[in-house]
Amino acid sequence: MPDIRLLETFPTPSSTPFVVEHVADEFTSLCPKTGHPDIGTIILRYQPAAADTNAGKSGCVELKALKMYYQSFRNEGIFYEAVTNRIRDDLVTLLKPAWLQVITRWRGRGGIRTVIRADHGQVPAHLLGQ
Amino acid sequence: MPDIRLLETFPTPSSTPFVVEHVADEFTSLCPKTGHPDIGTIILRYQPAAADTNAGKSGCVELKALKMYYQSFRNEGIFYEAVTNRIRDDLVTLLKPAWLQVITRWRGRGGIRTVIRADHGQVPAHLLGQ
Amino acid sequence: MPDIRLLETFPTPSSTPFVVEHVADEFTSLCPKTGHPDIGTIILRYQPAAADTNAGKSGCVELKALKMYYQSFRNEGIFYEAVTNRIRDDLVTLLKPAWLQVITRWRGRGGIRTVIRADHGQVPAHLLGQ
Amino acid sequence: MPDIRLLETFPTPSSTPFVVEHVADEFTSLCPKTGHPDIGTIILRYQPAAADTNAGKSGCVELKALKMYYQSFRNEGIFYEAVTNRIRDDLVTLLKPAWLQVITRWRGRGGIRTVIRADHGQVPAHLLGQ
Amino acid sequence: MPDIRLLETFPTPSSTPFVVEHVADEFTSLCPKTGHPDIGTIILRYQPAAADTNAGKSGCVELKALKMYYQSFRNEGIFYEAVTNRIRDDLVTLLKPAWLQVITRWRGRGGIRTVIRADHGQVPAHLLGQ
Amino acid sequence: MPDIRLLETFPTPSSTPFVVEHVADEFTSLCPKTGHPDIGTIILRYQPAAADTNAGKSGCVELKALKMYYQSFRNEGIFYEAVTNRIRDDLVTLLKPAWLQVITRWRGRGGIRTVIRADHGQVPAHLLGQ
Amino acid sequence: MPDIRLLETFPTPSSTPFVVEHVADEFTSLCPKTGHPDIGTIILRYQPAAADTNAGKSGCVELKALKMYYQSFRNEGIFYEAVTNRIRDDLVTLLKPAWLQVITRWRGRGGIRTVIRADHGQVPAHLLGQ
Amino acid sequence: MPDIRLLETFPTPSSTPFVVEHVADEFTSLCPKTGHPDIGTIILRYQPAAADTNAGKSGCVELKALKMYYQSFRNEGIFYEAVTNRIRDDLVTLLKPAWLQVITRWRGRGGIRTVIRADHGQVPAHLLGQ
Amino acid sequence: MPDIRLLETFPTPSSTPFVVEHVADEFTSLCPKTGHPDIGTIILRYQPAAADTNAGKSGCVELKALKMYYQSFRNEGIFYEAVTNRIRDDLVTLLKPAWLQVITRWRGRGGIRTVIRADHGQVPAHLLGQ
Amino acid sequence: MPDIRLLETFPTPSSTPFVVEHVADEFTSLCPKTGHPDIGTIILRYQPAAADTNAGKSGCVELKALKMYYQSFRNEGIFYEAVTNRIRDDLVTLLKPAWLQVITRWRGRGGIRTVIRADHGQVPAHLLGQ
Repeated sequence: MPDIRLLETFPTPSSTPFVVEHVADEFTSLCPKTGHPDIGTIILRYQPAAADTNAGKSGCVELKALKMYYQSFRNEGIFYEAVTNRIRDDLVTLLKPAWLQVITRWRGRGGIRTVIRADHGQVPAHLLGQ
Repeated sequence: MPDIRLLETFPTPSSTPFVVEHVADEFTSLCPKTGHPDIGTIILRYQPAAADTNAGKSGCVELKALKMYYQSFRNEGIFYEAVTNRIRDDLVTLLKPAWLQVITRWRGRGGIRTVIRADHGQVPAHLLGQ
Repeated sequence: MPDIRLLETFPTPSSTPFVVEHVADEFTSLCPKTGHPDIGTIILRYQPAAADTNAGKSGCVELKALKMYYQSFRNEGIFYEAVTNRIRDDLVTLLKPAWLQVITRWRGRGGIRTVIRADHGQVPAHLLGQ
Repeated sequence: MPDIRLLETFPTPSSTPFVVEHVADEFTSLCPKTGHPDIGTIILRYQPAAADTNAGKSGCVELKALKMYYQSFRNEGIFYEAVTNRIRDDLVTLLKPAWLQVITRWRGRGGIRTVIRADHGQVPAHLLGQ
Repeated sequence: MPDIRLLETFPTPSSTPFVVEHVADEFTSLCPKTGHPDIGTIILRYQPAAADTNAGKSGCVELKALKMYYQSFRNEGIFYEAVTNRIRDDLVTLLKPAWLQVITRWRGRGGIRTVIRADHGQVPAHLLGQ
Repeated sequence: MPDIRLLETFPTPSSTPFVVEHVADEFTSLCPKTGHPDIGTIILRYQPAAADTNAGKSGCVELKALKMYYQSFRNEGIFYEAVTNRIRDDLVTLLKPAWLQVITRWRGRGGIRTVIRADHGQVPAHLLGQ
Repeated sequence: MPDIRLLETFPTPSSTPFVVEHVADEFTSLCPKTGHPDIGTIILRYQPAAADTNAGKSGCVELKALKMYYQSFRNEGIFYEAVTNRIRDDLVTLLKPAWLQVITRWRGRGGIRTVIRADHGQVPAHLLGQ
Repeated sequence: MPDIRLLETFPTPSSTPFVVEHVADEFTSLCPKTGHPDIGTIILRYQPAAADTNAGKSGCVELKALKMYYQSFRNEGIFYEAVTNRIRDDLVTLLKPAWLQVITRWRGRGGIRTVIRADHGQVPAHLLGQ
Repeated sequence: MPDIRLLETFPTPSSTPFVVEHVADEFTSLCPKTGHPDIGTIILRYQPAAADTNAGKSGCVELKALKMYYQSFRNEGIFYEAVTNRIRDDLVTLLKPAWLQVITRWRGRGGIRTVIRADHGQVPAHLLGQ
Repeated sequence: MPDIRLLETFPTPSSTPFVVEHVADEFTSLCPKTGHPDIGTIILRYQPAAADTNAGKSGCVELKALKMYYQSFRNEGIFYEAVTNRIRDDLVTLLKPAWLQVITRWRGRGGIRTVIRADHGQVPAHLLGQ
């Protein structure tokens, strides 16, 4: 079951803004209607909260914890749209980032490939369509 | 025969705006002049209507129903331009989305490949040329 | 010899604006200096004139006629730049489109590949560099 | 030795603005420090001066002359940055274009690939990053 | 150990602004948690300070010195985010550029690929997402 | 309905053996279990019967007739394996070739892509696995 | 848990030998040491037993049943080598084919990608290395 | 009109056997049925006759002459199969090579791409299927 | 320093012969002449010794141990040819396989890419050139 | 001027046979007819002479010396066929290898790309066509 408590953070290493992107190619969950596996890629992008804004709280997601969090969807029946919004909401709660974007790309089902994109805050325009 | 009644919807899973893209690589219809098959890819992009705007009406197109709707063009004689506008109009009627875009990419006929794009509403600029 | 009379049109199928792109990969003409063949790709993009603007005149170029028009350059000695401007001018005369763009991409001659772009009207910015 | 006198021009074939791009994949010069060959691609883009502006002077660079000009760098010891600025300056002097852009892409040396870009005038924004 | 003193510069070869990009595909450092090697690509982009601004100080990074600087991270335990910010800060200190951008792309660890981007100054918008 | 009578032939143009390959990327039939469309590529390879062997009978399949024959499967419910063997048998009957090979490549259904290969006669070994 | 009883067969549709290949891109099981997911592609190739040899028993594996069989490994802790040999053995038991080959291609773990190949009977030489 | 007299040769530069391959990507002729252009790639491979065998006669085809010979098919109505056999026969007559192979690859017509292969003499087995 | 004692094995999971391939894309060592890093890909292929031949001794190399063994070359000054032969010899000593092949592919140095291949025993012919 | 004295060797590091391949992508010489540059890739493959056969003489070509040797063709007017045979002969003289193969791939001239292959000794069959 997806579990936000699996996520961990570490402090932003710079007081200057920067951007992080993590691409997980091997995400898998289950279709809630058929029970068949869904396989997709999760693209996570965000600008960590400024160091002084966060006041001792960390602002970057730890990579191994992110992997464990993604794996917790393995046997969960959940729609594409819900996975995407769930991850966006969990990461925003965790990181309180300047902005954050989640894009999920799913392999074809019935000959149709699907992409879902959910943003939080002012995602820079040049990233939106990618 | 293309039939809008094949389409089904489900409620928007989030009150936060997000974007959906469905890419169907195996669309086929018939050329109304020659009767020969046309084969192409249909790219559908939209932002579902906000949950409160839609007042109980659903805002996302159901994937399997979309597939059946596309299959209903299989033996229809219809021009590239008309297919594109027809799908745009049917989906807009169904979903009442914030915005919607249909791009159709057709395999070469007589050595010429064709792309048609039809928009509804304010499609974000960074998507227009893709 | 290139002949605009080969071109034919058909009425715009929708009162809503949309965009058409035709990509012809097999265009060939002759270099006027050496007589050697030039081979290239012609990309034609336009937004058909609005149905009511055109008052009964058609606004889309017919695909087979476009192919015959392109073939009429086969034994014509003509520079890259002139081909591009000629096609742009002929299509604008024919279609009176909201805007139109012709891009020609030529295979290497002497180790140099060439691209020429000629626009008519307000081509959307996101298309210009493609 | 690079020689601007190798370059030739011909008159702009249209009074309507258009854009020209020449891509030369086989450019080679010598590293002035080591004497080893450098190999790269030269991308030249420009909008020819308007016909009336140029008053009888030609506004397009002749393709074969451009090739000979590029070949004149073959045994010249010259840095990446200097090649790029030199070509920009020579072509601007020759063509007096509305705008002009030179991008040079160099194969890896010591495991590092390099790209240099030099502009003249108001290069359209959508071309800058390509 | 990363050592900024390895870096060298040379004078800007032109008084006209231009842009430099160096792509190093073979960067390697160590993960500070596991000690395992990290392998990635470092993309460095900047506009050298104007010649007159720099008053005799040089404005371009020397390529071989840059390579030696990158190699000095080989046995350093350092996080992705810290590598990126460190390189940005060192190069800004060295070059005082009009603007500068560092993008690091890392091979997958645990099935997740990571990209970090750190900017300095007004990086042109069309470069940001690339 | 698949109809062998749609096929036509023309005489072998050479008394020396040669090999012909036709690749049709847009083949479509129906799954006999679900009624859903199947889309695939049909690769046909053969060596025409020697001119003197065929004694006035033609030995090459006519390209347009082959296209019509393939189109006759459009609304036929038929398994991958049966399509492949049917085409092999029909073409062998028609052409009496020295040897003949049919390979069908089908787009994924349920996440599994399928290839079927059926040979007639002594197909050269270097072609078998392609 | 992997279960051979999920597999189903259907009769060979031709008395002439032919070859079948099924490529499943989305196979997943668990690493028995770490519990982390493994993701890979399973390539299955075989020549069905001759119709008369099989005496009423079917000789082709049914595609949907094969998919369900593959899915039964989803939460199984099992090594690459064991998965490959297990699938080979199960399919040989089921199909009694003239020959059969299983190739598994696994995504990188710790920076190392792995391929395992297990054959049964006389696999044609031209297939062995693919 | 195709004209073998356009072809020229030069003496084999080595008494040791070697292999030559020329790939012409821009071949064009006309379909004799429809008059529409055909565009394809001509691959020519051969082993020049041994120097002493040829006794003063040349054994390699001159590259520029080969280009002119190919261009002489530009306005010729001729089938794929006939082009291939014609080129094979002309080159064999000219070069008297140890062996020779002509492969022609044609762009799709009616959705079907075609490859024709014609050999002369003992073409090495490892080249046959390429 | 490369250390064979880092390698571990596990028992062959099947009494039927099969083939294993491990591809490590991130191998790095040092050039013994210049001290600069070399980066390459190591392809290891082998057929484990038959279970009964090995008499209780294991026949497959453990993946994580292989990774540690490869990492032990990180700061070793060693030529391409020596790396390849060293790995071949170490693995043969460890595994006593039916046959074994090591291929190393190195990124370009001075514009030249290098591949080295070292075999042990009767490597199947169809693998040799890959 | 090409100079065999630039080449250097070093002793074979193993008494077991192995294979070496060097791929140089940036070779350039001049066309003896036109004086224009030719650019190509040189693929060199060989099996070093056995250590005991060579009796103290070295059997591998040194990489930096090979690079200098290739660079010595930079301003030499020489045909494709002659370059290939010259390199083969020089390397055979130098290395006395078990077998050796030189393949040269040249960028297009007049729309025709050329490949030349020259062997020495018994080159393994599976390498010949690559």
